[in-house]
Amino acid sequence: MKITEQIKQPIAQEMELFEKKFRDSMSSKVALLNRITYYIVNRKGKQMRPMFVFLTAKMISGGTVNERTYRGASVIELIHTATLVHDDVVDDSNRRRGFFSINALWKNKIAVLVGDFLLSKGLLLSIDNGDFDLLRIISVAVREMSEGELLQIEKARRLDITEDIYYEIIRQKTATLIAACCSLGACSVEPNGVHTEKMRKFGELIGMAFQIKDDLFDYTDDAIGKPTGIDIKEQKMTLPLIYALNNCARDEKKWLINSVKNHNKDKKRVKEVIAFVKQKGGLAYAEQRMAQFREEALLILADYPSSVYKDALVLMVNYVIERKI
Amino acid sequence: MKITEQIKQPIAQEMELFEKKFRDSMSSKVALLNRITYYIVNRKGKQMRPMFVFLTAKMISGGTVNERTYRGASVIELIHTATLVHDDVVDDSNRRRGFFSINALWKNKIAVLVGDFLLSKGLLLSIDNGDFDLLRIISVAVREMSEGELLQIEKARRLDITEDIYYEIIRQKTATLIAACCSLGACSVEPNGVHTEKMRKFGELIGMAFQIKDDLFDYTDDAIGKPTGIDIKEQKMTLPLIYALNNCARDEKKWLINSVKNHNKDKKRVKEVIAFVKQKGGLAYAEQRMAQFREEALLILADYPSSVYKDALVLMVNYVIERKI
Repeated sequence: MKITEQIKQPIAQEMELFEKKFRDSMSSKVALLNRITYYIVNRKGKQMRPMFVFLTAKMISGGTVNERTYRGASVIELIHTATLVHDDVVDDSNRRRGFFSINALWKNKIAVLVGDFLLSKGLLLSIDNGDFDLLRIISVAVREMSEGELLQIEKARRLDITEDIYYEIIRQKTATLIAACCSLGACSVEPNGVHTEKMRKFGELIGMAFQIKDDLFDYTDDAIGKPTGIDIKEQKMTLPLIYALNNCARDEKKWLINSVKNHNKDKKRVKEVIAFVKQKGGLAYAEQRMAQFREEALLILADYPSSVYKDALVLMVNYVIERKI
Repeated sequence: MKITEQIKQPIAQEMELFEKKFRDSMSSKVALLNRITYYIVNRKGKQMRPMFVFLTAKMISGGTVNERTYRGASVIELIHTATLVHDDVVDDSNRRRGFFSINALWKNKIAVLVGDFLLSKGLLLSIDNGDFDLLRIISVAVREMSEGELLQIEKARRLDITEDIYYEIIRQKTATLIAACCSLGACSVEPNGVHTEKMRKFGELIGMAFQIKDDLFDYTDDAIGKPTGIDIKEQKMTLPLIYALNNCARDEKKWLINSVKNHNKDKKRVKEVIAFVKQKGGLAYAEQRMAQFREEALLILADYPSSVYKDALVLMVNYVIERKI
């Protein structure tokens, strides 16, 4: 059995019902919108976010979820989908999960509006049902994600970026939404418990590991066996490169900065940069930091009694680190 | 004294304090964001929306507003600003209020993210203060606005568009936000009264008149003395044209449809269409419908005792109809 199927097993029923509810949550009076959202739900991703919601909820409650859990998962997925639709507009991407993106099929104007529509539908689902505690978790995530993306634009191309700023960027732009999933799952079943904050921290740590893994793909062999080097080409400073910059001789540093700044369109030079970062231990360091975030996350889980849900969360943590795509 | 200054007089103090609070509501840890929002607040528009909030609140309460009124006005203005920033991206506009637009100065990617940030800041301002009744009013408006824009994209270029669909489009895309301003103003001072719904209806009627006026500008002389005809060039069907289409002979209709469909880039033909719509009474009809919406709005105000705030709202209604830009 594939690891993702193994993870889904203890929440199989919930995930099935969730899909129906998620589909319903996007309905509109406007026919064009229904055509577009139909296209979206039929090209769904791995659904990692609702999985985190249901697994944490069931681990905390001992196996039961409620309507708040379903609504929370729907809101998160609506907002995540809205973000992806907007991302494709801003990055001018024509593809998403192997299919055409919304902006490619229906143009930018419609894509921006569809994103806004999905966002407001998500918020209304919480408001109409009085899920104000869940709504707060979600709105903080929305603000942090947009701030994180903007922080990245402001800082990530600066050659003097520090490791701390790198962590702040990935915490805001990626970890905050996974943190929201886990704390929302907990909050949906135990509104006033200590678990909401503990699970937020757990999700944040996983999210940090997840993004470091993502950034490592740029330097490691991809599915067809070659590192992509896209981040280097875009002068995006991620952990392996930041480490190498801070841990090399003066003349090497000069060469590295010059390579990233002035020769990042030169394929051969990009390859050399990748090799240099590897040789300086940038990849090993990033992997070590990723493993530390994983350990901290598992330490939080250790406080909870054994259950199939906890086991699945451990699998999920390992999947984040070991995934190939 | 200019009419807008006359309208602002009874809420001068509130508008001054509002500006400060609105400015504060946009603050962020990200320096780039603060630079952009500083640019935005220094190029403010007519501030019609907060004016509606404060005038309705003071008319209902007899002259006092509270912190909820200020927060509500800020949220509305944050969301309105977010919408404008996104609009300029989708319409690829370089200009806004005579200055460069955000996308022109900082590119599309940043503009979409700034819009998302402003939206989430608005929502958090309501959530953090427990203004859930106000939040509901606002979220419905956000959903209706995006649906209205999408409905317009779907239907407004169809040559068989009905008058009813036209009203539905302008109700959703324009009237709904002015309706939200007025009902929010009322709700901020009298949470459980009948005024919230009455003021929502009042705002909706004004919003309808406002958009018909906007659509009329395409056919009437603008500031430099010429009708723009932009809607015709974009094959956007608005009330004057819809009326003319439904009230002319068969061969005339054929000519009109052919003109809009196949010759809408031909300046001479566009001029002929404008003249034809005028001659068929399309403008007179649209003005008459606009006047009816105005009358209905004033009828709602008639239920309230005289006050300087009510007088200012009447001036506002007239300004909507009589404005030159």
